[in-house]
Amino acid sequence: MKGRGLFITVEGGEGVGKSTNLAFIEDTLRARGIDLLVSREPGGTPLAESIRELLLAPREELVDVTAELLLMFAARSQHLNTVILPALSRGQWVLCDRFTDATYAYQCGGRGVSTSLVRQLEDLVQGALRPDCTVLLDAPVSTGMARAQARGDLDRFEQEDLEFFERVRSAYLTMARESSGRYRVIDASASLEQVQIALAQVCDDLVACYPVRQ
Amino acid sequence: MKGRGLFITVEGGEGVGKSTNLAFIEDTLRARGIDLLVSREPGGTPLAESIRELLLAPREELVDVTAELLLMFAARSQHLNTVILPALSRGQWVLCDRFTDATYAYQCGGRGVSTSLVRQLEDLVQGALRPDCTVLLDAPVSTGMARAQARGDLDRFEQEDLEFFERVRSAYLTMARESSGRYRVIDASASLEQVQIALAQVCDDLVACYPVRQ
Repeated sequence: MKGRGLFITVEGGEGVGKSTNLAFIEDTLRARGIDLLVSREPGGTPLAESIRELLLAPREELVDVTAELLLMFAARSQHLNTVILPALSRGQWVLCDRFTDATYAYQCGGRGVSTSLVRQLEDLVQGALRPDCTVLLDAPVSTGMARAQARGDLDRFEQEDLEFFERVRSAYLTMARESSGRYRVIDASASLEQVQIALAQVCDDLVACYPVRQ
Repeated sequence: MKGRGLFITVEGGEGVGKSTNLAFIEDTLRARGIDLLVSREPGGTPLAESIRELLLAPREELVDVTAELLLMFAARSQHLNTVILPALSRGQWVLCDRFTDATYAYQCGGRGVSTSLVRQLEDLVQGALRPDCTVLLDAPVSTGMARAQARGDLDRFEQEDLEFFERVRSAYLTMARESSGRYRVIDASASLEQVQIALAQVCDDLVACYPVRQ
């Protein structure tokens, strides 16, 4: 019988190369024989993807911070209960582009929402579930913003100012220090080759520590 | 200086004549000189109306009960903070088609969601705010369902079975007993004329007890 799969999340601010490097992690794990489900937050189910669209769409209406937070956790609850938990239970590994640490970074760090409020919703929606490993792609905000702007149209979050993203980065780095057992911080300002050498090492460590159970 | 406006909600199951009678209450209060804002839940702002569409759309995906609950309160937080509270503060009365009691009736009564979970979210989103008066349009489920089905296409809630709506009705009647000071229960199975005589009395009582402050 297969054991429970590993839950791996990838976090980082804007323009840190998250898409490229997530694809690299996916290819690396699959090449090592891992049965992998790749998803993203907010999103990962039709309903949760619709909630994502509501969250990211630029809008004239001022969005209440509590409403934004409840939307995030509504999408997360749907994703967790209908996709992530069933996959982990059948022994698949789950690789997820962002998870609750992004809520702490963007809503608490960025917008000043109370951490205890997020913790209350995290416990309510996730129970004891936390990622087994979180890869943080970290780069100076100016580097990331330049890359994000070069990509073109900005969503509602990408339109925030530099100070917002400095607070987001700082919140991520604080979590990485406080949960150093779970976090692997990658210097995303290095060359792509260097970043991917580091990521391949992370993948090897995960496969070595949690051998595929068949 | 105007005082705070009254917050009036109208509740009831399917096919109890909520739209017709809400319009009657609106006309009656306006005829008595009340500066009134009429709204509805879930909804009442562009974002909250989009959340309403997500909630009501029939979908193949099984909707996680916690996700549904968080979506309801996300819409409510947006509606409350950007529409209802500002109106009450400037002295307007607010007449709202459904509010949190509908969550207790449909999610707790209908779906068996824990009451303490809803109470936790109610406190989080509303603080101490509760409606000043709740008009419950009550009718036997068979009567209401026959009227709702005669209207045509059913949304995701209207597709539930009779037992679901029996539990919803029972939850409303329990709240009306427990909060008898706030509730006015109207027998919606009576003739429209009788219902509206009763509603006109409720409106007169409200205006008499809370004279328009100018």
